[in-house]
Amino acid sequence: MLLEKTFVDAITYRPGAVILYPGKSDMLYRVQSGLVRVHTMDDEGNGLTLRYVKPGEFFGEEALAGVERHYFAEAVTDSTVDVINPALMNAEDNLEVTTHLVKTLDRAYDNIYRLVGKRLRARIAGELLELKDTALATQLQTGETMIYATHDELAAAVGSVRETVTKVVGELSREGVISAGYGKITLKNERALADIAAE
Amino acid sequence: MLLEKTFVDAITYRPGAVILYPGKSDMLYRVQSGLVRVHTMDDEGNGLTLRYVKPGEFFGEEALAGVERHYFAEAVTDSTVDVINPALMNAEDNLEVTTHLVKTLDRAYDNIYRLVGKRLRARIAGELLELKDTALATQLQTGETMIYATHDELAAAVGSVRETVTKVVGELSREGVISAGYGKITLKNERALADIAAE
Repeated sequence: MLLEKTFVDAITYRPGAVILYPGKSDMLYRVQSGLVRVHTMDDEGNGLTLRYVKPGEFFGEEALAGVERHYFAEAVTDSTVDVINPALMNAEDNLEVTTHLVKTLDRAYDNIYRLVGKRLRARIAGELLELKDTALATQLQTGETMIYATHDELAAAVGSVRETVTKVVGELSREGVISAGYGKITLKNERALADIAAE
Repeated sequence: MLLEKTFVDAITYRPGAVILYPGKSDMLYRVQSGLVRVHTMDDEGNGLTLRYVKPGEFFGEEALAGVERHYFAEAVTDSTVDVINPALMNAEDNLEVTTHLVKTLDRAYDNIYRLVGKRLRARIAGELLELKDTALATQLQTGETMIYATHDELAAAVGSVRETVTKVVGELSREGVISAGYGKITLKNERALADIAAE
C-alpha cells in the first residue's frame, strides 16, 4: 500500500477546527475522510479559500520543501487526516505526492484564469459544481444534490463579498437552476449550471 | 551535479518563440538563461501570464504526473532551456523538482490573493518588483533598474487591460515612483513601489 510506512498518526477534527496555522512544520497531511479547506486571510480578517482538499488529496506540502506555510487549513466537516512523515517516503510515494502537486498547481492556475476572465456568475456556478462531490454535498431522494454552503463561504471561495453572492444566488434561483435555503443550495439543473460555469 | 544524468538537450529560443503548446509531453524543462513566460489564453486570444520562469526554475512539470498541459510557454528574451528526462531523475533530483513545485504553488496562491484582494495599483507595483531580477531588467548607470515591458504585457500579468494599466502607470509616473518610456519602465523609487505593492 502506498505511503504505508510513512504514517505517524491519524487525527479526527470537528467542523471549524484549525488543523494548520501559517508557519513551518515537518509533516505532510492527507485527508482520509471529510473535507479540508485551505485558506488565507487579509489584514481585515476576510478569508479567501485557496482550495478544498478532498479524501485522498494532500495538504501541508511545504514540509517537502522546508519552506514557510502562508495559509490556514481547517476542517469543514468532520474530517480524519493522516499525518505523514516525508522523510520516510519512498520513490513511489514521491511520485504520488508530485502528481498531486502538479494537479494542484493546475487547479490554482485554473482558479486564476476564472478570477480574471470570468464573471462572478460563472465563478459561482463553477464553485457549486466543484463542491458537488465533496463531504459538503448530500444526495436528496429526488436525485438532486444539496450542498451545505453559506453565502459567506461561497464569497470566500470565489473572491467576492456576501452581498454580491446573495444577488447572484437569487438570480440563479429565479432562473430555476438552483434553489437556495438557509445555509444550503440545491442543484436543480446541473447541465444549465455547467453551461453558466463555462460562459 | 544535480540532474546531471537527465539532460536530453539544451535548446536556445528567440524572443517570442513558443516553446510549449497546450497538450502532453514527456519532458521537463529548466531555464538555463533568459526568461520564459507561462501563459494561458481566453477564447478571444487575450493572454494571461500565469508565471515567469527564471534561470534555475522549471516548467513543463505536468510531464511528471502524466497529465495534460493547459498553458503555453514562450521565450520572453533570448532563452536557453535544458530538456530533462524525468525517467532518469534520482531521489535528489526529485526533491529539487518537488521544492520548485511547492514554491510555484505558493506563488500561484499569492497571485490569487493579490488578484482578489489588491487594487490594480498594488498589483502593478508588485509585478514591476517581480520583474526586477529577471532578464527583462537592466541596471542603468544611475543605479536605477529599467524594465523592458509594454503596457500590454503588464496587463496580461496582472489580469487587466492595456487602457487601465496605462492610466495607473501614468499615475505612478506623476508620483515620481517610476518613469515610463515606450516599452520600458524605470524604477525611480523602489521603496515607495514596495509600499504601494503592500497596500
